[in-house]
Amino acid sequence: MTAETKPRLVMKFGGTSVADLDRIRNAAVKVKREVDRGYDVTVVVSAMSGRTNELVGWVREAARPADADHAGLYDAREYDAVVASGEQVTSGLMALVLQEMGVPARSWQGWQIPIRTSGLHGAARIEAIETEAMVRKFGEGLHAVVAGFQGIGPDGRIATLGRGGSDTTAVALAAALGAERCDIYTDVDGVYTTDPRIERRARKLERIAYEEMLELASLGAKVLQTRSVELAMRYKVRLMVLSSFEDLPGTLVCDEEEIMEQNVVSGVAFSRDEAKLTLVKVNDQPGVAARIFGPLSENGVNVDMIVQNIGTDLTGGEDGTTDMTFSVALSEVERARAALEAARGEIGYEALIVDDEVAKVSVVGIGMRSNAGVAQRMFAALAEEGINIKVIATSEIKVSVLIDRWYLELAVRALHEAFGLEAA
Amino acid sequence: MTAETKPRLVMKFGGTSVADLDRIRNAAVKVKREVDRGYDVTVVVSAMSGRTNELVGWVREAARPADADHAGLYDAREYDAVVASGEQVTSGLMALVLQEMGVPARSWQGWQIPIRTSGLHGAARIEAIETEAMVRKFGEGLHAVVAGFQGIGPDGRIATLGRGGSDTTAVALAAALGAERCDIYTDVDGVYTTDPRIERRARKLERIAYEEMLELASLGAKVLQTRSVELAMRYKVRLMVLSSFEDLPGTLVCDEEEIMEQNVVSGVAFSRDEAKLTLVKVNDQPGVAARIFGPLSENGVNVDMIVQNIGTDLTGGEDGTTDMTFSVALSEVERARAALEAARGEIGYEALIVDDEVAKVSVVGIGMRSNAGVAQRMFAALAEEGINIKVIATSEIKVSVLIDRWYLELAVRALHEAFGLEAA
Repeated sequence: MTAETKPRLVMKFGGTSVADLDRIRNAAVKVKREVDRGYDVTVVVSAMSGRTNELVGWVREAARPADADHAGLYDAREYDAVVASGEQVTSGLMALVLQEMGVPARSWQGWQIPIRTSGLHGAARIEAIETEAMVRKFGEGLHAVVAGFQGIGPDGRIATLGRGGSDTTAVALAAALGAERCDIYTDVDGVYTTDPRIERRARKLERIAYEEMLELASLGAKVLQTRSVELAMRYKVRLMVLSSFEDLPGTLVCDEEEIMEQNVVSGVAFSRDEAKLTLVKVNDQPGVAARIFGPLSENGVNVDMIVQNIGTDLTGGEDGTTDMTFSVALSEVERARAALEAARGEIGYEALIVDDEVAKVSVVGIGMRSNAGVAQRMFAALAEEGINIKVIATSEIKVSVLIDRWYLELAVRALHEAFGLEAA
Repeated sequence: MTAETKPRLVMKFGGTSVADLDRIRNAAVKVKREVDRGYDVTVVVSAMSGRTNELVGWVREAARPADADHAGLYDAREYDAVVASGEQVTSGLMALVLQEMGVPARSWQGWQIPIRTSGLHGAARIEAIETEAMVRKFGEGLHAVVAGFQGIGPDGRIATLGRGGSDTTAVALAAALGAERCDIYTDVDGVYTTDPRIERRARKLERIAYEEMLELASLGAKVLQTRSVELAMRYKVRLMVLSSFEDLPGTLVCDEEEIMEQNVVSGVAFSRDEAKLTLVKVNDQPGVAARIFGPLSENGVNVDMIVQNIGTDLTGGEDGTTDMTFSVALSEVERARAALEAARGEIGYEALIVDDEVAKVSVVGIGMRSNAGVAQRMFAALAEEGINIKVIATSEIKVSVLIDRWYLELAVRALHEAFGLEAA
């Protein structure tokens, strides 16, 4: 046999896909299928579901004094040592199950490969992956099972990548190994034009562009970790989202050049629990935005959409003031309100109006770059249903609106139909 | 402050001593006490009790095909990756709890120190410990928490030392670090002259010699792992056995030169469930012992005491045959019987007599090296109670006898009294 290099494939299984030995076996069957197709396979595994939460719980308990009820701060390096053990367990078990099925495989911990990370324990970034040892083992016929979510920091200690980091491990390995594809097995079977629980005619996308996936992910379609999609886009790693539990074609996340027939809009995304805050008659002076959003950021409030109007619509005349409207997640509204009231003297505004009955709906599609009419079609479809638009924000491939939460499902269905997204 | 080296102490906590966060805190209080006394402390921890069994169970399940009921053989390297995670978790949690108490500490995995082992995964031996990095951290005021039971093999992968290996980790670290003492915290509070459940006047020994401890350990007093005592003896590491749960003085296991006032006998040990097997009229030819004990060993039977008589007592005359008597654990008697019956043609014997109603009682003491009367005193004490001796075996510091199991407790009490071991 010549030492010809086989094509490489990375396959990632999340926590629910390796929750127990039966599921690990089920995942291993999928791995064996790809091995039989002629790939050198690298499997990336998460911790068995529930495991990470248990370990994190222990860390919190360890860091809390027995006679106090506050949660202590803890040493993130020790958090990493404890929590990374979850993936270590799964990697060994998966290797054993594969061996049992006749697939030669070995486990690799992050520090063994090594996957070198930054020193920010608990939220480290992958900086380099030295694949020489893995590749040498491929040459001996040994497939790889890698503990996800972790690497080794500059201090020589285990560093974890933050929750959901196994997706990132998989994509980074696919890039470093030049893998043909990175398959992400999860508990959904692909990316849909919208949530099928709201629009039963929602269609599974065969392909979606990285940029679209990023917009969808940040809008709450929790299929893939945002960072992993960014990384895939940067290194042009083809990502396939697939079901662990059903044998169905998935969705390929890829470069837009790989997508032949492109709809103008690929999907309708939404976020149900939003709140709209308006500061009325803010003194419109240079630096006012910083004075508003500084205190919000310092208090951990993530601001999403921001709209600034010269003060005419509410007050009827130009008087050197402005109205500033922005949206936050419903869960952060009280924190936002407190921060703004505390900073009232510094900012200078007449009133704070909070509307906590709003939802956000967005249409996303790279096709709208070359198609100017998308926003107009969106507004018309909503108007036809009598849905009032409260705030509008646009990006290059997305138009988002805030509407009354009451009309959310109606709006999603109306837009899904208006852009012709339903299944054939 | 000068860079004066502080005295060093190793403290090991077993699984029941770190079974949950409350117990880890309890152990940490003991660590803090030694830190406050001025030691650079190295804590060695086992997995939380129950954890290792759970992990081993998963490994067995992973290696067993779903459609078969036999336990498969498994890759010991993957066993090690999975099972070693238990100690990794405890090491991080202990470091966090110590930090919370104001004791600067960090966890060390075997591969981080590194503790270099042989390549025999699952039962590796420690070959070298590079303490430079740990010692450097002592210089920065950082105490160490080491995951017990594991190191890194020549293949760069995690290698475990076998069950109970955390004791060995602790002793090896104490030797490598030149520690003043190695404290083993466990669920008993020391080593007793005999089992207090049988003789309530049993006395906790203040000190015991390594050799005595080895004899006691191999006789079933499961306080310390035999390998760890051997290692301590070889490197003259002073071992202290202490209770995790009560604040009581423990027992120091040390060189006999450290023991001033030495009783002739230090303790009475016993093993309740033994069996005696006699092969009658074995052809007494060269190589007969190998023909008998070969098949036993091949079938995993551990033979303990062995006595060979020229064939006179049972048959009444010298006829070129011999009777061979030996003892095995009761649990191995059927395996032994089957092996001997299968090899009957090869060995050549007239009958196999099995007595499965025996127990072993031993007196142990380094003092008997210079004191010839011990065996005689032992036989007299048993005779006085009318207890018949079935087999006798002696070593330099031990005399063991097999007796009827029925008289075990009586024999232990009689010997305990005969050698003056009771508490003052």
